[in-house]
Formats: sequence, C-alpha cells, structure tokens
Amino acid sequence: MDAYSSQITKLIETLGSLPGIGTKSAQRLAFHLMNMPSEKVAAIADTIKETRNSIRFCKSCFTLTDRELCPICASEKRDHKTIMVVENTRDLAAYERTGKYEGVYHVLHGAISPMLGIGPADIRLTELMHRLQQDITELIIATNSSLEGETTAMYISKLVKPTGIKVTRIASGVPVGGDLECIDEVTLLRALEGRIDL
Amino acid sequence: MDAYSSQITKLIETLGSLPGIGTKSAQRLAFHLMNMPSEKVAAIADTIKETRNSIRFCKSCFTLTDRELCPICASEKRDHKTIMVVENTRDLAAYERTGKYEGVYHVLHGAISPMLGIGPADIRLTELMHRLQQDITELIIATNSSLEGETTAMYISKLVKPTGIKVTRIASGVPVGGDLECIDEVTLLRALEGRIDL
Repeated sequence: MDAYSSQITKLIETLGSLPGIGTKSAQRLAFHLMNMPSEKVAAIADTIKETRNSIRFCKSCFTLTDRELCPICASEKRDHKTIMVVENTRDLAAYERTGKYEGVYHVLHGAISPMLGIGPADIRLTELMHRLQQDITELIIATNSSLEGETTAMYISKLVKPTGIKVTRIASGVPVGGDLECIDEVTLLRALEGRIDL
Repeated sequence: MDAYSSQITKLIETLGSLPGIGTKSAQRLAFHLMNMPSEKVAAIADTIKETRNSIRFCKSCFTLTDRELCPICASEKRDHKTIMVVENTRDLAAYERTGKYEGVYHVLHGAISPMLGIGPADIRLTELMHRLQQDITELIIATNSSLEGETTAMYISKLVKPTGIKVTRIASGVPVGGDLECIDEVTLLRALEGRIDL
C-alpha cells in the first residue's frame, strides 16, 4: 500500500537517487519541502534549474562556471605561469579555500581508471597539453592520492617532462593534527619517504 | 574570492539550507547536478515543485496526500474504528511499513512542547476530538517516546478518557536486536516496568 501518495513517493525516489541521500534522508527532505511555503520550494527548484542551465566549462581551465572565462582565469592577480592540475571543481575549491595558492588551475574532470574504463582520452588532457604550449614555468599535479589519482599523476608527468616544464606533485603524508596510531601504513611510509630537513 | 561562480555558490547555499545537508554534501550534490544532463535536472526540479503544489492534508486524518481523502482513509479494508495518533506523516509511514496495522491514523503535525512554545492548539487536536465523536473503539497513541511525545500522549489520554473510548500507548522498551549494555538507563527501566508474562 502506498502510505503517502504516488506524488510524494515519486519525490522521495527522485531525491533518493542523488548521491549521499539515502531513503531516510530523502523522506526527511521530502517532508521538509512539503511543509515549506510553496513559493520557497519553487525558488529552490528554480535555482537548481537555472544553475544547471547557466553552467558551462571555463574555456581555459575547464572548471564549472557561468562565464566564458572563470573568475580565476580572468584575474590579473593570479600567476598564469603556474598551473595546478586537479581532478574536479571541488578539489579546486578546496585549494582556493587555503587562500594561499596564487597560480591558476586545470580541471581534468576525472582521473585515469582502467577499472572504470576511463582512459587518458576521457579526461581533459589534450586541453592541458595545448595550454602547456604557452609560457608555463611549473605544473603542479594535485590529483587525489588514490590509485587513479596516482596513475593520472604518473601519466601526466611522463607526458609533460619532455617539454622541459617543471612538474611537481603535492606531498603525501600525515595530515596536520592527525594521530599517528590512527593512520594507515601506506601513509606513514609516504610520510617517512617524504621527510624534510629541519 | 568566489572559486566557482556566484550561481553555483547560490545553489550550494540553497541546498545546504535543507535539513541533513551540510556544506560538503551540498557541494557534492551541486556538482553532481551540474554534471547531469540538463533535462534530468529540470525533471528533478519540476518534481519538487509539482509535488509541493499538489500536496494537501487528508480531510480525515491530516496526513500529507495529493487527494481529498488519503489512500488509507479511503480504503474499505482498513478498520476505521481504531485510530493511531502519530506526530507526523513519516511516523505513519514507519507503521505502514510493518504491514500489520489495519486501523487508520491521525496525524498531529507536531507534539506539545512548552520549550518551543507549541501548545495543544498548535497541533491537530481539535480535529482529533471531532473524529472521536464517531464510533471509535480504540485510540492508540504512538507519539515519540521523547519528552514532547510523552507530554502529548498524557495530554491526549486525559482529554479522551472521559469519553469512554479505550486509550492505549505503544510500548517502550529495548529495541529488537538491541544490546543491553548499549541502552540508556531510562529505556532499561521502562523495559523492566513493562515486562510481560511468558
């Protein structure tokens, strides 16, 4: 028996199909929306639609933005000779929050994953190589330190090295504030290998 | 600096204002939506709007539904002489999932909470008393076993008892599969008080 109504059930299923939203969260969300003023709900729905329709890739770094050139690529204050390669726009935002990185980015929109059938041609690598024909001094590879991220980093590094551009990789190690006993062995070894002089 | 674009930031803020969705989840959701086909995103937004616009209260039990009378109140198979009082439609759905309750419901849309300034007049109590003028044999109070739920249960019980209708309360106790050592003292005492003969 359909305890609510077919329409509410449809809404719960729709919300539950989104990532990170399970059946219980979908129910809570749906009932929250049903108890909100109709105009507010319409405003939320419109924001979702409008944002999706206004969104496109920055023509330089391929981050998601609503302009031809994203605010970072368009900024004269940034160092356009240093490019940080990230897997997606969320990773870009994570580095932006540090407020200390002054270069620009290149968003791959994925990482090489033979398991998932994602090859070098499926991420924005051609576009990266094209950008490297300009006057670039350093390429910082900031893909995740997962298997896919490391594979992608290795691949890009091999591809770019012959051009003579300096290629670096962000450090792996113990997170700041991390408790050694809670950290996995691979990270501990990485931290040891990457030790620096004091 | 606005790392994404003002439009995406607006979407993240909008999604993050919903219950159970923090900033990180809102970001993940927003980027998931931005990577979905535009028509699918529009369909999700439309489902949200349409559901909110089609929704109303069942004129008998006050659950949220898209009809004048909800499927449960409209069903001839249900026992309309037994009413279960619940705080909201989600609690109704929880009992519906058991598949064993054959009576109908009454949804209060809240619980009495002096702390939050919610009094008896703010929940659907007048409507419940009105329904009890019909031929009702049992009123099962299934409000939560929180302070508010218990207060509401006591209040309804005192209100209804003079009418001669049988008033019952769902049992409190140790959840099935629950590990005694993980359960709080109040629940353990309730389980002891409510012990049954074997």
